[in-house]
Amino acid sequence: MDYFEESLKLHRKHRGKIKVMPKLPAKTKDDLSLAYSPGVAAPCKAIQENPDLVYDYTIKGSTVAIVSDGSAVLGLGNIGAKAAIPVMEGKAMLFKHFAGLDAFPICVETQDTEQIIQLVKNIAPVFGGVNLEDISAPRCFEIESRLQDIGIPVFHDDQHGTAVVTLAGLLNACKVLNKKMSDLTVVVNGSGAAGGAIARLLSGFENEDKTFVPVKSVMMCDTKGIIHRDRTDLTPIKKEFLTFTNFENRQGNLFDAMRGADVFVGVSVANLLTAKDIQLMNPNSIIFALANPVPEIMPEEAYKGGAAIVGTGRSDLPNQVNNVLGYPGIFKGALEARAKRITLKMKVAAAYAIANCVKKPTREFIIPSPLDKRVVKAVAAAVKAAV
Amino acid sequence: MDYFEESLKLHRKHRGKIKVMPKLPAKTKDDLSLAYSPGVAAPCKAIQENPDLVYDYTIKGSTVAIVSDGSAVLGLGNIGAKAAIPVMEGKAMLFKHFAGLDAFPICVETQDTEQIIQLVKNIAPVFGGVNLEDISAPRCFEIESRLQDIGIPVFHDDQHGTAVVTLAGLLNACKVLNKKMSDLTVVVNGSGAAGGAIARLLSGFENEDKTFVPVKSVMMCDTKGIIHRDRTDLTPIKKEFLTFTNFENRQGNLFDAMRGADVFVGVSVANLLTAKDIQLMNPNSIIFALANPVPEIMPEEAYKGGAAIVGTGRSDLPNQVNNVLGYPGIFKGALEARAKRITLKMKVAAAYAIANCVKKPTREFIIPSPLDKRVVKAVAAAVKAAV
Repeated sequence: MDYFEESLKLHRKHRGKIKVMPKLPAKTKDDLSLAYSPGVAAPCKAIQENPDLVYDYTIKGSTVAIVSDGSAVLGLGNIGAKAAIPVMEGKAMLFKHFAGLDAFPICVETQDTEQIIQLVKNIAPVFGGVNLEDISAPRCFEIESRLQDIGIPVFHDDQHGTAVVTLAGLLNACKVLNKKMSDLTVVVNGSGAAGGAIARLLSGFENEDKTFVPVKSVMMCDTKGIIHRDRTDLTPIKKEFLTFTNFENRQGNLFDAMRGADVFVGVSVANLLTAKDIQLMNPNSIIFALANPVPEIMPEEAYKGGAAIVGTGRSDLPNQVNNVLGYPGIFKGALEARAKRITLKMKVAAAYAIANCVKKPTREFIIPSPLDKRVVKAVAAAVKAAV
Repeated sequence: MDYFEESLKLHRKHRGKIKVMPKLPAKTKDDLSLAYSPGVAAPCKAIQENPDLVYDYTIKGSTVAIVSDGSAVLGLGNIGAKAAIPVMEGKAMLFKHFAGLDAFPICVETQDTEQIIQLVKNIAPVFGGVNLEDISAPRCFEIESRLQDIGIPVFHDDQHGTAVVTLAGLLNACKVLNKKMSDLTVVVNGSGAAGGAIARLLSGFENEDKTFVPVKSVMMCDTKGIIHRDRTDLTPIKKEFLTFTNFENRQGNLFDAMRGADVFVGVSVANLLTAKDIQLMNPNSIIFALANPVPEIMPEEAYKGGAAIVGTGRSDLPNQVNNVLGYPGIFKGALEARAKRITLKMKVAAAYAIANCVKKPTREFIIPSPLDKRVVKAVAAAVKAAV
């Protein structure tokens, strides 16, 4: 099937992919008197007196805003708010399909950090959670971090969704290879939204309450090589990465980083590595080559270089690292618990729940299928319990 | 039925009144590849190249934002964003039920005029139109007027919805009583959102292209009496009202205004008038007593004073002036035409369409029933033709 041609046709035929439907009848005068005037005054007054009742009398408890400025959409880059709408509608469909949640796209005209922050605060009353989506780094970090105290969870899926599923894969990879997380040296290549969040999560940053055992160490690379203390070209956000990476202050290029590493996580560009590069790593290495649609290295090539387990972002290859394993259950659990934010503990709980959905992990099956309906239930329950 | 008790139960049982549903299947890998990655890149790219295609490939063309800050909700006053949600969800239901449109509540935390204007501009990409709702005067006037050039219609229903249906009623009242619009002297009591818009529309302000024949003259009253040029207590918006009302600079209280008037429109408070006050007006007067739920005067009492035709806001009395006769068709027509704003011509067309849905108007039947399904079609077609 020509996905692009068919997708165009389908979008044109249906004029988009979601619709808003009533949950109550509106056929008789009585129907209208209950759903609207005069009856509606009763829930309004009740909420005015006790704002927490907004979860009982409105859609808030099941409703998620998908907020994007269209600045970093899929592999398409900065295509703007209007062109981003089909992606956000698609995500809204997935929220309903996987988690039964009501998600609505809020595609914003502005790419100004302050305006986006203000806007999310202002639209919060109707929503139980906010999924930030496809907002470019480093603005995504500031926007998310400054929205953590608005009373509902604000979660940038491109960061944490990817990080959670990567951690899930790594947990099962360790089981298969009989390795310990605490022994692993990890190289993350790519310093955007996903790379930063993966490094942060695997390193156990802010893991004060020992929620889980993180890896031994993480190094991050950008296009100029290893991110280290002596570089003078680091942006503020890359300097912040040094608070949880590269404590030994190793220097050099990507290949210097890979020498002696156990895990490579790529969130960078297609066809970056060959079997020879993998040979620099320790034996039985674990490779997550997540560039989309073409990974940093194809599994066959990585195996030739000594890799034991390979994951990618592709649905036609084994071990697909797909965010859809994470965010539906994470939001479902958070909303059911009326959580005010998504904490490290909740993210780690989600990763373990995803990993545990694979009863007997093997080299080619460390991550459950995105179509596995058990995952969202397991993740939601684990996240809810971790609030 | 105890509408309040039942309404509470119903809202609690269903946790609100609307839901977001997919229009496409999401069961197979192919479904997901078409609705989401990788197929979704095709409509994204198409819109990036030609932004107008957003109407073909997304929900924009059928989607309306219902924006409220909860500052003037029904008869409840300034109850804030959260407590306003049930009303906005109810309105979203009505948009679907009457016009098949997808409306979503945007209840905003802020009551700052500048922030609301900025927010509406920023969320505009996903929406084909914006229904401003329950925003207090005079902020509602500025917010609406400064949003007229954002490329999609922005329409404050509390103003124009009421005005359009009132004009429709007046057109049929003239038919029944064999009066001419151009002979009528009108008193509007109440200087909020609805009062201002009714006076503006009936007076024919900005009717340069002679879209219709307006009334002879309009006077507005607030709690201090007639709004006239020599008053020193007028706010800027009340001064603006003088550009289309009271050209003779009449002075005095409400009863002075009513003396010799043909039409009284009340958007004020309950039980304000008696039969004696109606006697001040010309014989066969037309009364729209729209205060809710209790009108300025009940029909029986008005008839005693010589009124020929009485309309109210109540569904249990004849001649209900109900906005639901207006906004669904107005938005439907405007969206189908991809109109950039709702013009006077479109509003007048809507009023005539509503009036013409009553084939043989009588004193107790000048306005069609809110449940009359023909109205929305007639209004939408008329508005579309008037774009």
